Amino acid sequence: MVEQQHNKNEELYNVEELRQYLLEGNIESFREIFLELHPYDQAQFYEKVGPDIRKTIYQFLSPQEMALIFEAIELEDEEYEQFLKEMDTVYGAEMLSYMYTDDAVDVLNELDDEHRESYLEIMDSETVEEINELLAYEEYTAGAIMTKEYVSILENSTVRSAMTVLRNEAPNAETIYYVFVVDENHCLTGVISLRDLIISDEDTLIKDIMNERVVFVKVSDDQEDIAQIMKDYNFLAIPVVNESNKLIGIITVDDIIDVIDEEASDDYSKLAGVTDIDDIEASPFKAAKKRLPWLIMLLFLGMITATLMGQFEETLDKVALLALFIPLISGTSGNSGTQALAVAVRGIATGEIDEKSKMKMLLREVMTGLITGIVCGLIVVGIIFIWKHTLLVGLLVGAAIGCSILVATIAGSFIPLLIHKLGVDPAVASGPFITTLNDVTSILIYLGLATTFLGQLS
Amino acid sequence: MVEQQHNKNEELYNVEELRQYLLEGNIESFREIFLELHPYDQAQFYEKVGPDIRKTIYQFLSPQEMALIFEAIELEDEEYEQFLKEMDTVYGAEMLSYMYTDDAVDVLNELDDEHRESYLEIMDSETVEEINELLAYEEYTAGAIMTKEYVSILENSTVRSAMTVLRNEAPNAETIYYVFVVDENHCLTGVISLRDLIISDEDTLIKDIMNERVVFVKVSDDQEDIAQIMKDYNFLAIPVVNESNKLIGIITVDDIIDVIDEEASDDYSKLAGVTDIDDIEASPFKAAKKRLPWLIMLLFLGMITATLMGQFEETLDKVALLALFIPLISGTSGNSGTQALAVAVRGIATGEIDEKSKMKMLLREVMTGLITGIVCGLIVVGIIFIWKHTLLVGLLVGAAIGCSILVATIAGSFIPLLIHKLGVDPAVASGPFITTLNDVTSILIYLGLATTFLGQLS
Repeated sequence: MVEQQHNKNEELYNVEELRQYLLEGNIESFREIFLELHPYDQAQFYEKVGPDIRKTIYQFLSPQEMALIFEAIELEDEEYEQFLKEMDTVYGAEMLSYMYTDDAVDVLNELDDEHRESYLEIMDSETVEEINELLAYEEYTAGAIMTKEYVSILENSTVRSAMTVLRNEAPNAETIYYVFVVDENHCLTGVISLRDLIISDEDTLIKDIMNERVVFVKVSDDQEDIAQIMKDYNFLAIPVVNESNKLIGIITVDDIIDVIDEEASDDYSKLAGVTDIDDIEASPFKAAKKRLPWLIMLLFLGMITATLMGQFEETLDKVALLALFIPLISGTSGNSGTQALAVAVRGIATGEIDEKSKMKMLLREVMTGLITGIVCGLIVVGIIFIWKHTLLVGLLVGAAIGCSILVATIAGSFIPLLIHKLGVDPAVASGPFITTLNDVTSILIYLGLATTFLGQLS
Repeated sequence: MVEQQHNKNEELYNVEELRQYLLEGNIESFREIFLELHPYDQAQFYEKVGPDIRKTIYQFLSPQEMALIFEAIELEDEEYEQFLKEMDTVYGAEMLSYMYTDDAVDVLNELDDEHRESYLEIMDSETVEEINELLAYEEYTAGAIMTKEYVSILENSTVRSAMTVLRNEAPNAETIYYVFVVDENHCLTGVISLRDLIISDEDTLIKDIMNERVVFVKVSDDQEDIAQIMKDYNFLAIPVVNESNKLIGIITVDDIIDVIDEEASDDYSKLAGVTDIDDIEASPFKAAKKRLPWLIMLLFLGMITATLMGQFEETLDKVALLALFIPLISGTSGNSGTQALAVAVRGIATGEIDEKSKMKMLLREVMTGLITGIVCGLIVVGIIFIWKHTLLVGLLVGAAIGCSILVATIAGSFIPLLIHKLGVDPAVASGPFITTLNDVTSILIYLGLATTFLGQLS
């Protein structure tokens, strides 16, 4: 399908033809084909051609047309700055003011203060005010992802006047499929969908047909919680209010899809111990920089395990056979810990695990650890007995594996809950603790048992 | 926010009050409050009350009203069957025919053949035909997630007649914000948004204002690829065509959000070695059943490592100190392998890694492995020298860690690509191979080096 999609795009337009028009300076033919394309396809073309050709594009397209491309584009952080620098500052500022506020803010957030100021200075004051408002909100909150381009009407309007407002706002609003209803203080009182508007009589009053049970979010709410609500209710947009219940923006479903994608990638990369997963294009040095903090931290924590094992050097010295099963035991303990951790972290992230279900889940994990521990322990006893013909070592390794699976499973679910309680993101902080704890306990159990039964072993 | 949301819901309606009306048989008061709620809130209430109270709900609500709840509900697979069994078969069948086809198919898919047939037998033939069509499509394809409730018009219609069609279809169609344009053979020729319709003159012909560059998907396309397209283009719905380009359904953004969520959870749970992450509510036996296959497989693969180490029993027997660093080395190698694996698997899943960028990425990973390996190796040499005052053991462990990080990083990116090439999902199959390969190579390198330099050590 990915290939098909590429083929289809190539059917939709001819990259070489467009490039040729730009090189020839054939503005009319270029605009005729290019402006017919979906902004996403325009952005793909714009991104692919080199800086020289892009300079011609800036001459051929108005800042307003360029704004559509910048709304659709998905770039690495530094690329925004690079592309903006190719443009004339006045052109760039004008383009930014034509963009939806939330998208303009995303771009401006990537610039350094000085560079950002140079744009804000020449933009009109109303837009600058809106942009500064959004820039002030904390990252990952409703305020940071909302847009100011929504349609609102007074509750005393009729359907007819609402439709007139809609038609006028249609070219600017990010969505016209929901109209938000406010009172004279601009406080949110209801919502009505365009679907309901077009099937209603034109003289009906909005307040008689609007939905008063409007679900909204606060400007400081976390984006992940908002994503959950929009997913549950299947909304295309959700209104954002400030502390005094005044409507100040909306969040649309396309931004929420990006949030869901981003948060899932986040949890995933944290489980894998990479600070940021989107680095396919990054240089080896950048990739190494992202991975080293985790590796080095685990290296130091791994030294704790080595120190602890040093206490049993005498036992290991006497029965070298014991060392063979150390990777197996710590590996299995690590695996079962990661499983429990993954379930707990996802459960906390999706809100499935709350205060009430916490104890229930912990109890469940204890039982799960017992079952998996006993099953794996028995299998190991069997394998070692068949392979090495020794029941004693088998029992020792089996018991160690069983116990460490139990401990690892409990730790894997308890530690994220504890860390979450402390207000830290459990996805990022749980891993190293659990890895170390599991290594330490599994080896303590194994070599402790071995030392106790040393007489029978040697 | 999660708490706030709960609070807000509780403001929106009083659970106890509703429950009381049901117990008293006060049908009017119940319907007055309940039907005002958003279907998601209705579903939350319906799910929470016990089976006895639900029996009363079936008496108080029509199958059509119940259909809205079933569209909004998110249940475990078995629960659908359980809830349906509480209803009268005729009531259940009628409810299913009122549901959007895609949602009805989701429910019917959870039932055994016999049970499903009992519903299909009493539903009207047109609905059954549509349902059977969707049931026939393979899971995870466009056909399996599309809905038949879309709005289409002929290209020769006027805006006025299009609006009339829209108003008539509004109560049934899953979205009316896109109207799909077809020719007399029902082949897809264009698309027009409601936004464009309401700002156009009523006498304009659709074909003059429609967008002819309509992006569509084929019925057999993979849902993950479709999600990517809808994310790129910010569509609210996308049309689905069959082999002869006939429009046969649409996929809406709410279903795509579920796909994105599901696929991200999938990748995540596979990385953690759990066959399915959504098991917060599952019994310990069920949870253990989901985790054991992975644990047992790794147990057997771990035996390979133990066997291999058996070859070095003599070396270990002579220098017990060596055993202390085994968990550290295999742990670090495992960690760097998982990092590389995560980047590769996500890159393949999101389509960022394709044929062209493959070699580039592999080369990048070789360099990344070299850098991280050298840095970590040097750190280890330093730590062990300071701690144990032995440069030789430090160099040995440092070299082993450096080499195994390099090997693990290359394996972590190469193996998913290889497995993907073989047509297998790299997320699920790469883990055990890489874990074992990393354990084996890291120990081989470590104990191999140690045996070579044994003279200097003992």
